[in-house]
Amino acid sequence: MGGAEHARDEDVALAERLGELIARENWVLLTGGRDAGVMAAAVRGAKRVSGSLTVGILPTESGAHAPGIDIAIYTGLGNARNVINVLSSRVVITCGHLTPGTTSEAAFALKTGRPLILLSPNPEARAFFRDAQIARSPEEAIELVRRIVG
Amino acid sequence: MGGAEHARDEDVALAERLGELIARENWVLLTGGRDAGVMAAAVRGAKRVSGSLTVGILPTESGAHAPGIDIAIYTGLGNARNVINVLSSRVVITCGHLTPGTTSEAAFALKTGRPLILLSPNPEARAFFRDAQIARSPEEAIELVRRIVG
Amino acid sequence: MGGAEHARDEDVALAERLGELIARENWVLLTGGRDAGVMAAAVRGAKRVSGSLTVGILPTESGAHAPGIDIAIYTGLGNARNVINVLSSRVVITCGHLTPGTTSEAAFALKTGRPLILLSPNPEARAFFRDAQIARSPEEAIELVRRIVG
Amino acid sequence: MGGAEHARDEDVALAERLGELIARENWVLLTGGRDAGVMAAAVRGAKRVSGSLTVGILPTESGAHAPGIDIAIYTGLGNARNVINVLSSRVVITCGHLTPGTTSEAAFALKTGRPLILLSPNPEARAFFRDAQIARSPEEAIELVRRIVG
Repeated sequence: MGGAEHARDEDVALAERLGELIARENWVLLTGGRDAGVMAAAVRGAKRVSGSLTVGILPTESGAHAPGIDIAIYTGLGNARNVINVLSSRVVITCGHLTPGTTSEAAFALKTGRPLILLSPNPEARAFFRDAQIARSPEEAIELVRRIVG
Repeated sequence: MGGAEHARDEDVALAERLGELIARENWVLLTGGRDAGVMAAAVRGAKRVSGSLTVGILPTESGAHAPGIDIAIYTGLGNARNVINVLSSRVVITCGHLTPGTTSEAAFALKTGRPLILLSPNPEARAFFRDAQIARSPEEAIELVRRIVG
Repeated sequence: MGGAEHARDEDVALAERLGELIARENWVLLTGGRDAGVMAAAVRGAKRVSGSLTVGILPTESGAHAPGIDIAIYTGLGNARNVINVLSSRVVITCGHLTPGTTSEAAFALKTGRPLILLSPNPEARAFFRDAQIARSPEEAIELVRRIVG
Repeated sequence: MGGAEHARDEDVALAERLGELIARENWVLLTGGRDAGVMAAAVRGAKRVSGSLTVGILPTESGAHAPGIDIAIYTGLGNARNVINVLSSRVVITCGHLTPGTTSEAAFALKTGRPLILLSPNPEARAFFRDAQIARSPEEAIELVRRIVG
């Protein structure tokens, strides 16, 4: 989970690396599905790995999604689809500085008991989400997930 | 799409056959995901075909789903998830006599412009949903879908 | 509940009368809130009665609603808001010939156990929704509601 | 908006005072509607003022709500109803230390452009939600709202 149009370049790069690593583990990658920022980058990374499987939970009723989405779930729910992103994930990872949309997803993860990992968050987010685990690199995030699902 | 706990035996049998045929076409099978009636039967049929891919859009926040669901999308939305079933489908097929839940899905298909096929509906449903196509067998339903997506 | 842009003139007239009668009973009128067809007409009727209270459950995130809506609930959920219309109503009344959107609401009423009254439905709707009560006039609909809530 | 079962006593007291002040301004009070914590307290405060109007947006399909709710909107959407709380509010006020549910609402307020006021937040929340206005007392929150809507 992460920023869309206004995501920082370094956060987009992290997402691409993370998506690739998730796919290498043979895990399904689930994102918000839009063709923007962290979502699109994670999918791009995953699709470098043959046999990868990507799910996108879209806010729209139809239309465009990030290239490389294998299963496009159209909800038509706008921002309310963020809840579905969280509920359908075994582990929730936010990627980079937290935007408002990603903040709602981190909050829902805590509310609904999904393990939450913040990858390279801004310091204020780290201080605020005290119940999250922190990863300093995509590799460290993968290692944390392994311990959770292992 | 079809009845859950109260689905008729003949409609459950239709769904199992339809699920198998959908999988043989290499199409993704999307259902409401619950372990009941038409939903569970369609998935059971699809999983007889190796390489099949099944998606379940669940009304719950977590918990059980039909055996054989590959991608479980937990929405926590209750009945509102029926809209997602329809929006995420290339073609909507109802299976057997229409129950209230399935009726809502048929209505949303017409509302949102998704092609709608009624497989072996009750006569009142057939008369009411005039804009739907009618299939008398799973094979005929597949043939109708082929023409739509072909 | 009833048609929007494509509602028939006679159904719009029924809705306006029904809205007025609902307000005279001191009941809260709940509609889909949009400035179109049966929704707008029912609100218009209700607002002829001083002290009336009208609630609109809108599909949009913000913006226009029918004139006369006292409480505008913006959902941003698109068609999924139809479920809320039903769940938040003590009794669900459809007004005139059933459109796809209204059909979904009638179906959800049956699914979730809300009493359902069809006011002047088309014959196919009447035959299909066998568990609904039928009213031939707004006055008869009010009388049926009185018996349900009385 | 604020905590439910685990809300702190001082935050519940703030909510009761705030609800009363909102009602005195003749504004409609909208809460999550449940009979718990900040939600119930705000309604309790508002109902001390004659002529007050309170709306509750409930996560459930039916059942209990806070005493004093005039308009109960049942959504059946679980946590996804938090989006509606925000979209339907002219101004969003969080009350006390931010819980995960309230955090999601603060995030959605920023995402959807609703003015956001944090009343007596924890310091980490204050540092994290930099785009929110801060109120140190219910009276100050009312004064901030007056400037926004005036």
